[in-house]
Amino acid sequence: MTRFGILGAGRIGRVHALTLARSGRAEVAYVADALPDAAASLADAVGARASDVDAVIEAPDVDAILIATPTDTHADLIERVARAGKAILCEKPVSLSVERIEACLPVVEAAGVPLMIGFHRRYDPNFAALEKRIREGEIGEVEIVTITCRDPSAPPVSYIERSGGLYRDMMIHDFDMARFLLGEEPVLVHALGGNLVDPAIGQAGDVDTASVQMQTASGKICVITNSRRASYGHDQRIEVHGSRGLLRAGNVHLTTLEKADETGWREDLIPFSFIERYGEAYRREIERFLDCLETGESPRASGHDGLMAQRLAEAATRSRATGEAVRL
Amino acid sequence: MTRFGILGAGRIGRVHALTLARSGRAEVAYVADALPDAAASLADAVGARASDVDAVIEAPDVDAILIATPTDTHADLIERVARAGKAILCEKPVSLSVERIEACLPVVEAAGVPLMIGFHRRYDPNFAALEKRIREGEIGEVEIVTITCRDPSAPPVSYIERSGGLYRDMMIHDFDMARFLLGEEPVLVHALGGNLVDPAIGQAGDVDTASVQMQTASGKICVITNSRRASYGHDQRIEVHGSRGLLRAGNVHLTTLEKADETGWREDLIPFSFIERYGEAYRREIERFLDCLETGESPRASGHDGLMAQRLAEAATRSRATGEAVRL
Amino acid sequence: MTRFGILGAGRIGRVHALTLARSGRAEVAYVADALPDAAASLADAVGARASDVDAVIEAPDVDAILIATPTDTHADLIERVARAGKAILCEKPVSLSVERIEACLPVVEAAGVPLMIGFHRRYDPNFAALEKRIREGEIGEVEIVTITCRDPSAPPVSYIERSGGLYRDMMIHDFDMARFLLGEEPVLVHALGGNLVDPAIGQAGDVDTASVQMQTASGKICVITNSRRASYGHDQRIEVHGSRGLLRAGNVHLTTLEKADETGWREDLIPFSFIERYGEAYRREIERFLDCLETGESPRASGHDGLMAQRLAEAATRSRATGEAVRL
Amino acid sequence: MTRFGILGAGRIGRVHALTLARSGRAEVAYVADALPDAAASLADAVGARASDVDAVIEAPDVDAILIATPTDTHADLIERVARAGKAILCEKPVSLSVERIEACLPVVEAAGVPLMIGFHRRYDPNFAALEKRIREGEIGEVEIVTITCRDPSAPPVSYIERSGGLYRDMMIHDFDMARFLLGEEPVLVHALGGNLVDPAIGQAGDVDTASVQMQTASGKICVITNSRRASYGHDQRIEVHGSRGLLRAGNVHLTTLEKADETGWREDLIPFSFIERYGEAYRREIERFLDCLETGESPRASGHDGLMAQRLAEAATRSRATGEAVRL
Repeated sequence: MTRFGILGAGRIGRVHALTLARSGRAEVAYVADALPDAAASLADAVGARASDVDAVIEAPDVDAILIATPTDTHADLIERVARAGKAILCEKPVSLSVERIEACLPVVEAAGVPLMIGFHRRYDPNFAALEKRIREGEIGEVEIVTITCRDPSAPPVSYIERSGGLYRDMMIHDFDMARFLLGEEPVLVHALGGNLVDPAIGQAGDVDTASVQMQTASGKICVITNSRRASYGHDQRIEVHGSRGLLRAGNVHLTTLEKADETGWREDLIPFSFIERYGEAYRREIERFLDCLETGESPRASGHDGLMAQRLAEAATRSRATGEAVRL
Repeated sequence: MTRFGILGAGRIGRVHALTLARSGRAEVAYVADALPDAAASLADAVGARASDVDAVIEAPDVDAILIATPTDTHADLIERVARAGKAILCEKPVSLSVERIEACLPVVEAAGVPLMIGFHRRYDPNFAALEKRIREGEIGEVEIVTITCRDPSAPPVSYIERSGGLYRDMMIHDFDMARFLLGEEPVLVHALGGNLVDPAIGQAGDVDTASVQMQTASGKICVITNSRRASYGHDQRIEVHGSRGLLRAGNVHLTTLEKADETGWREDLIPFSFIERYGEAYRREIERFLDCLETGESPRASGHDGLMAQRLAEAATRSRATGEAVRL
Repeated sequence: MTRFGILGAGRIGRVHALTLARSGRAEVAYVADALPDAAASLADAVGARASDVDAVIEAPDVDAILIATPTDTHADLIERVARAGKAILCEKPVSLSVERIEACLPVVEAAGVPLMIGFHRRYDPNFAALEKRIREGEIGEVEIVTITCRDPSAPPVSYIERSGGLYRDMMIHDFDMARFLLGEEPVLVHALGGNLVDPAIGQAGDVDTASVQMQTASGKICVITNSRRASYGHDQRIEVHGSRGLLRAGNVHLTTLEKADETGWREDLIPFSFIERYGEAYRREIERFLDCLETGESPRASGHDGLMAQRLAEAATRSRATGEAVRL
Repeated sequence: MTRFGILGAGRIGRVHALTLARSGRAEVAYVADALPDAAASLADAVGARASDVDAVIEAPDVDAILIATPTDTHADLIERVARAGKAILCEKPVSLSVERIEACLPVVEAAGVPLMIGFHRRYDPNFAALEKRIREGEIGEVEIVTITCRDPSAPPVSYIERSGGLYRDMMIHDFDMARFLLGEEPVLVHALGGNLVDPAIGQAGDVDTASVQMQTASGKICVITNSRRASYGHDQRIEVHGSRGLLRAGNVHLTTLEKADETGWREDLIPFSFIERYGEAYRREIERFLDCLETGESPRASGHDGLMAQRLAEAATRSRATGEAVRL
């Protein structure tokens, strides 16, 4: 039984803590949060003790720590937890600053602790199967990856202002997925972005509708489109065109129900909540992290993966600002 | 160029006459109809002359005759045309009376003229491909055939009163399709029927919602469901379960468009008109009849096919009336 | 925390015991099985004690009992557990004999204990949503229910010999679902059956390919088709035609992946194991039973439901044997 | 009856000539081709006379001319036909040179003759319905247009060498479709291209796998991906994300058949031939041109549309060569 400390009792901290508590393979020993009530409430739900960050990091009866605090605290916490010799599962991103990540990772490496970054989409059963079948060569060489990601509605502008912008905050998942599927690093990045959803987002200096196209050295192409608004739910699709065929992962619908009436043939809705859409992915992410701790295998979405995705987000942000393509 | 006479200038007579005129392989020489204006109008549209039934049947410059008159005239006309030595394409059914069909077919046979019955669904590209792939053994032995056929709305009660009832009027097409796909004759027929759509239909002694299940001597099963009302259009589907897999022909939608919004994911409508749904089938039916005339091959939906479908309709009608299964 | 005793540590007993143990709302206290090793192994997995049937039924620290033993023991066990004053969740069927069920239910009623029958399909999220939307009137009046149920492969002939035959063993679930969706009792039943899959099944006196059509007093129709073999997996579909539209629940595929290559466009497989297909249904069934125990609400699939489904299975078996329709 | 002269008796000239001949609204009077046999053969098929280009252009009994000759002759022929006062339907592109188009269009305008460019996809029933529903505001404001276009296999390198490159030869249709759907002109174009299909294409200086992203002044985005090879057929899809929903036009499959077996659930193939895929679009294109001639309405894909699509192709070609985005 791996003993966990949870830093951050917000929405995603809660999801992970509950999964750990029900896993039969781990126990949650401590929960810390800037809001003591939140920590107490989650601790209560998972049979843990509420504590504070320093104590959790240093607790001798803690083997691994989940970092689910606000983004600007991630890098510091990773370094402190690493120095305390504990395994780390950290929500993305490590930092909005590529330089900060570059400084942080050697600390982890020096400490020799496992670090997994919370790119949960890698563990979605559909996307994971897509990657596996590509790796097995089912459609030959990967040539064009097309990623569609659209959120039901935009977060509050107050959040957007601190988010680092759409490419770092939202498209970061797609950058990770692009690398996961391309099997090569993009070397050329071009980004477009528009303010079509909410003028307040534009006033905050961000875009709400965006696309990025990237190319690897061997010529493989990846195209990503994002929108902060989709009236029809959390639109999450990936399509890979290969030399011998095409593989795509469509949306997950709430049920298999289909209705026919005088307006057409209607499939059921897709989820509007990312927690609902990716519930199984979150569970599998935790299982995978526990596997790594038990077997000593390296986590698949490593600190290096976190860094590389951030570099792409950085390049896209720059490209959008200048209108020029960015070479990496 | 085969020269045609058209008997009956109603909706389906018009469809066939126009197809013949545009085929480049046939010409329409004469059109006759009980309503002289209808005959004149269609004759004008296809470059033919309006005439009367007797004259068309006897005309020396007519090679083949399309019978698209009311059902109760079919058997008599078939006999007269056969005796005049002309090829016949007759709309289904030959007659509402099995005995009348049994009397009619030997006349055709004695005359040695080709007779094709207008079971147009056999020529629908989807159903034809389904049959072909089954014959080629793609799913092994046929075991269960499921036929779904639902009309957008019921015809007028005045029509229903003369129709012979749902099993003879509407399900007759499904009986033909069942035989086409089973490749064996049903020997046991059980029918259910209800009056759920319009009380006036029940008052006219007919049902508007019905199912039939049939079995062949070797044990193969066919299930048919019909409704006189489908709010969502002309629902026409067939599914065949075989020893090595399942093949099904779904509905044809108006376009490939799909829309996602807050109510779900909506495919486009299916046709509400059978002429629209089966436009291509009607074209191919005519091409097939012309092929037979040119090559001397026997038409696929023969008089015998017409007879056998009528026997099943008869059995179903009886089964529904008595509540008992009928053995053939 | 409701304390459970498990009678029967076979496949389905194990599924339910594990669900109970992980529910956070119940604990498994005892497990009994004719095979002591099976009982011990399952007891170990869920933190319970292995015991024997008599002791479990009488144990003062048991509130509810799951009966997952062979079918021929169900009715006796139900009566004994009822007399011991404990709540009962019993796998279907109560008995292969309608008379035995009729004798058993009054005992339960007299004891005043809750009895839920394991018709797990009612709790499948898709079928449950289908029923809910029908009840809410979304497609108007239900007119035709079409149920497709095909198993990947037949059970051993030794099992079939004791099973009561396809209609009682396999189609029983469809009879329950028919009643669930029709909202009325069928009064006329006609069954067809063939031996197309394996001659040994026929030699054992059973069929392996079957259809049933039923009608309610008001004229609503239900059509069910079953096969013991589907090369493509556990085919489980329901379609309901109503006065204002059609609702259908399609198959659940393993992933959302679709592949296009020179052979066509291929969706992923559907499950080949019923445990995999209905995993979520089994979980929700347990949750629902626990809800009933906590709230005092009556279980939805009651003993009466078990009786009525069995009557339909009985009627179908007789209809198949005689070739005649059976009136209820 | 509009009388047509056909210049160019190749594949597409033949398709259009046959459509005109069967339309009942036009007749083909003359056919000219650099290969006299080709002209004679087509003339024979449509009841026309074979002639030479000069004679056809000047023929007093010709009202309209179809230009389906090699691309490098288009602009000259347009000017000559315009000066002869005849209506023009010209296959895309007007010219590979934007400057040449800019010189050509004023000649047409001065002559006051109708000019329609053969962007046949506008007339595809699915894409036309897509555009209509967007214009009617069904999904609110258009925000992201995603166009997928992949050919089954690359044309001969000898063709590619004269084609002007993928962006001018193949993606030109997508540029037209992008403008058709965006309802605004793109002002920023970025192109990626790779040589992944056939090294000989790279040696000829072209790419075979490409993407382009474009943005309009108001921020709307369009993303296009092309490949010269799709093992699964002629992949032609468009998706439009709007402020109130998403509309997409999927591929057209050969039939509605679906097969389930142990490898999954397989839909039928999509066409491998563009003539087959766009047969209905070609027919509607001709009908539309005839409508314009009869009503005096301006053709929808005008010379200006031809020019604007060419400018985008030019920009994409330049962007790909330099790696930089191009502003228009």
